[in-house]
Amino acid sequence: MNKFGDLKTKDIAELEDIARRVRQKILDTVSKNGGHLSSTLGATDIIVAMHAVFDSKKNPFIFDVSHQSYAHKLVTDRWDDFDTLRQFDGLSGYTKPKESDNDYYMAGHSSTSISLATGAAKAISLKGEEDERIPLALIGDGSMSAGMVYEAMNELGDRKYPAIIILNDNEMSIASPIGALSRILSQSMASPFYQKFKKKTKELLESLPDSATYMAKRVEESFQLITPGILFEELGLEYIGPIDGHNIESLIDTLKIAKELKRPVIIHVQTTKGKGYEIAEGAGASKEHWHGVGAFDIDSGNSEKKSSPKASTAIFAETLVELADIDDKVVGVTAAMPSGTGMSMAMAKYPERFWDVAIAEQHAVTSMGALAKEGFKPFCTIYSTFLQRGYDQLIHDICLMNLGVAFAIDRAGIVGEDGETHQGVFDISFLRAIPNMTIFAPSSNNTMIEAMKFAKDFPTPCAFRYPRGAFISQDKDNTPFEFGKSRVVSEGSEILFVGYGNGVGRAEQVAKLIDRNPTILDLRFVKPLDRNRLLELSKEHKHWYIFSDSAKMGGVASAILEFLSEEKIQDIQITTFEYEDKFITHGNTKLVEESLELLPEQLAKRIE
Amino acid sequence: MNKFGDLKTKDIAELEDIARRVRQKILDTVSKNGGHLSSTLGATDIIVAMHAVFDSKKNPFIFDVSHQSYAHKLVTDRWDDFDTLRQFDGLSGYTKPKESDNDYYMAGHSSTSISLATGAAKAISLKGEEDERIPLALIGDGSMSAGMVYEAMNELGDRKYPAIIILNDNEMSIASPIGALSRILSQSMASPFYQKFKKKTKELLESLPDSATYMAKRVEESFQLITPGILFEELGLEYIGPIDGHNIESLIDTLKIAKELKRPVIIHVQTTKGKGYEIAEGAGASKEHWHGVGAFDIDSGNSEKKSSPKASTAIFAETLVELADIDDKVVGVTAAMPSGTGMSMAMAKYPERFWDVAIAEQHAVTSMGALAKEGFKPFCTIYSTFLQRGYDQLIHDICLMNLGVAFAIDRAGIVGEDGETHQGVFDISFLRAIPNMTIFAPSSNNTMIEAMKFAKDFPTPCAFRYPRGAFISQDKDNTPFEFGKSRVVSEGSEILFVGYGNGVGRAEQVAKLIDRNPTILDLRFVKPLDRNRLLELSKEHKHWYIFSDSAKMGGVASAILEFLSEEKIQDIQITTFEYEDKFITHGNTKLVEESLELLPEQLAKRIE
Repeated sequence: MNKFGDLKTKDIAELEDIARRVRQKILDTVSKNGGHLSSTLGATDIIVAMHAVFDSKKNPFIFDVSHQSYAHKLVTDRWDDFDTLRQFDGLSGYTKPKESDNDYYMAGHSSTSISLATGAAKAISLKGEEDERIPLALIGDGSMSAGMVYEAMNELGDRKYPAIIILNDNEMSIASPIGALSRILSQSMASPFYQKFKKKTKELLESLPDSATYMAKRVEESFQLITPGILFEELGLEYIGPIDGHNIESLIDTLKIAKELKRPVIIHVQTTKGKGYEIAEGAGASKEHWHGVGAFDIDSGNSEKKSSPKASTAIFAETLVELADIDDKVVGVTAAMPSGTGMSMAMAKYPERFWDVAIAEQHAVTSMGALAKEGFKPFCTIYSTFLQRGYDQLIHDICLMNLGVAFAIDRAGIVGEDGETHQGVFDISFLRAIPNMTIFAPSSNNTMIEAMKFAKDFPTPCAFRYPRGAFISQDKDNTPFEFGKSRVVSEGSEILFVGYGNGVGRAEQVAKLIDRNPTILDLRFVKPLDRNRLLELSKEHKHWYIFSDSAKMGGVASAILEFLSEEKIQDIQITTFEYEDKFITHGNTKLVEESLELLPEQLAKRIE
Repeated sequence: MNKFGDLKTKDIAELEDIARRVRQKILDTVSKNGGHLSSTLGATDIIVAMHAVFDSKKNPFIFDVSHQSYAHKLVTDRWDDFDTLRQFDGLSGYTKPKESDNDYYMAGHSSTSISLATGAAKAISLKGEEDERIPLALIGDGSMSAGMVYEAMNELGDRKYPAIIILNDNEMSIASPIGALSRILSQSMASPFYQKFKKKTKELLESLPDSATYMAKRVEESFQLITPGILFEELGLEYIGPIDGHNIESLIDTLKIAKELKRPVIIHVQTTKGKGYEIAEGAGASKEHWHGVGAFDIDSGNSEKKSSPKASTAIFAETLVELADIDDKVVGVTAAMPSGTGMSMAMAKYPERFWDVAIAEQHAVTSMGALAKEGFKPFCTIYSTFLQRGYDQLIHDICLMNLGVAFAIDRAGIVGEDGETHQGVFDISFLRAIPNMTIFAPSSNNTMIEAMKFAKDFPTPCAFRYPRGAFISQDKDNTPFEFGKSRVVSEGSEILFVGYGNGVGRAEQVAKLIDRNPTILDLRFVKPLDRNRLLELSKEHKHWYIFSDSAKMGGVASAILEFLSEEKIQDIQITTFEYEDKFITHGNTKLVEESLELLPEQLAKRIE
């Protein structure tokens, strides 16, 4: 049931009113539930205009990253359910075909939309449906830095399938605009090419006796008309823009023109992020803060303060600065997540040694390889889910060369409301298979510091993971990390709890709930395993329970099973509490864990 | 020992003579050993010029893909060993720091060089060595389609670190030039932007009374000077070119200018692929053929014919056409490997349904997701080693959406002379962890056909792998694939051989060499496993040997161990003959396997 009916039947005033109401609803809901705010407010007018021209059940509406799709949900069939946004069993914070047939595709990682539009355009062409359907991709300028956007434009521009790419340009990615591409969009007139051209033209005109002034002006004007689109036109895409992304009438007119062109078109739309909510708008607002927020007070813009334990990311941020203080070889990179990864602290203190390379995980990984080759110690800091984008680079450019890059893997395990696309559950499985890779994990605040000290001095590739939010374990232990060495947390009898990373804290919780007194081992290293210790423990402990926030296929238990098999030890029974082989839904982490039967009480029951 | 001494001390005539001798040596050696030919002949003059200006022990010489680096090996310290090229224990076909300190980095996958140059430039800047050192990247136009090139240029152009990127433009990637980028390089004057600009300028000039003709000419000229570089200049890189890549003097002059600029520079160099060997040069030559060749006769250009059994790729090629004949929903994609993957046959017959998207694995994977969503059946055909580039896309755009894309994974296992960077050994480990993924493998010619029929009708994501060259097994069995079902090849007693893919043939070979009579199981599916059959077999067979051309960490044995552990079966002993946790060297496959103790005789001995 669409709250507003068919937007194609509305006049401009009605559409503007709808946009206003949609914005208010977004603001109300996000201030309660948390979520993405400024991008979705900025894109509301564009989305209303899209629906005023196209039917989203027929035409593929492809939202890049799709965190800006709230307005789309509200003008289609999800107004009434919108207060469940991002909650367990509620609406996803991203597009999701299972939620509505107005949603064409799921997306949470950036820069996939032009590839999808190209694929959809091929399908439409094969089906002979070009007269009735056209794919529309809505992509923010921040997503334009990732390489796959270019791979897709390269093909789309060459083959000329009809498709509409709406480039929502708010002059910022999640953090500040980074790189040459942002500059092209925001300051085309100042681009090196334009400057050179202007200089040449000026020299030329000055050599002419008459008409020069008039001529110069006209040349410049005609050039200005097309300059921002050079890059796209060179790639074979029609370029229209820049146009005002908050003028619904002009947006509708442009979409209609684009539809008629029957070619790939880029519509360059300029918007204000946070539009309609003054506190999040404009230059004064902290842009990164308003990108994704927790619950806040609408009038003041203040976040609801929760007194929560210190997040692992905060420990990372502080420790990285300390390590950089004592060792000038320490450098680091983030792919557009300076504040999310906590690298912003080090970037502020050492701007020459810590880089934000924009959404560009492939480049982030490989470029750090060269720094390691030159004797530096790079901390390559990427969320578990986004490291998947740099997988080949990790194998081919780091591990084959056996270089000492340290991968700091944030958001390992369940990430909560960001949901299915962002769960950090595969890293152990995909990293473990790579030769030369050492893999370990801290389990508490103090061991986080120790893990980072170890990583700093480790000469070959290594990776350590840590959870979103705080560690479960409150253990104060700070024994240094030693290569391939585990640590016995507490000695017990009969059964063995093997914890890895945040799994150690969970093992501790469960141990308190059961009658039997388990030995608890902090595995620390999943590659290489602490073989001597495990051999020793295998003598007295015949049932091992594995606690780790990771996929069980190829995960921690799998590593232990491989080891036991190699050692021909057959009398150990292994039970793993890693994640089953299913994608994990979004929602409050505790509720999600409950649904997976992973809460301490549930685990205790499973054991007893 | 450098055969030619220091190239910086030579005059142009001497350098030209060196280039000629280097080419002859390459031709002589490759005609015997096989190898990359046309790209390395085309790049010889550039490489000679690089060494005439820069010291490769001091300056990072970064060769993209590095199959064009033979001349570099010959003018540095490897002339005398060059006849061991690509042979086991001999010189690698790629750059390799372990081989020589003239080699900065290892590379076999494309498009990493600009990231490496950016990283090296950062290191040089941090060390304050800008006056003595500068990174040089040599990259072919075919490598320019991959997204990571843009990610790197985006940062390099923004931060302006001194670096020299030599774009070796021979108007062809491995296959034909694909996409808008190739067109930009080869036909800049015909580009849409240029056309539009020309039209506008013409209109403008026509409106003026005098000087019009002269003016038009001058504007056009000044524009032509800079047009091919627009794309790069827009990205913030200085552009020089195009220049003649076979004129050593002009190359040297340009490199010296570029060095002095102290900024990132792209030198656009035009070369003839195969230069110096007429048969491989020019339009008449089969470009893809001469890219990489086996041994051949220099005078005729004819390959040495070996009568070898039919390669799995040939079966794939024929079967794909047959499936496309009977089902018009069958479509497919290759990332710049039409002939290598055998997709060229289907592309020739159905050019509208099979696409080469250039070196762009990320885009290849994701765009096929949209085709599956639209009801088509895409065969996404990528070598095992290159699928690593599409890993996040496989998870996020295919498996999360649970779409019926079939991944045809060629070059699974050891690939021979192409070596360390190309071994296809990780796919089972990295795919198995992904929910919704079904993974299987044919073991013979007939089962290859059956596997493809199964894939065609399979509704959700699936992947099947097959080896470079022919299957070992000559079994004629053609029972259809059934979801999750294995097949008993032969009944024996006592011990069980579990073969997966080409491992089945190896198991058959070994079975003939041992006294005991094993039961041989063709596992067919590694995900999901045939649990019922394995349970059944576990009753009578207490020692299982696993045969599979895959990394053992997270591989086939690991999957079986996970299963046995879940089933609480503890009395089975598993021995796996999968690859140990080391990168595998290049060379003749049999010699490599011998070094790994994986030949049938060696395995038989290990079992007895």
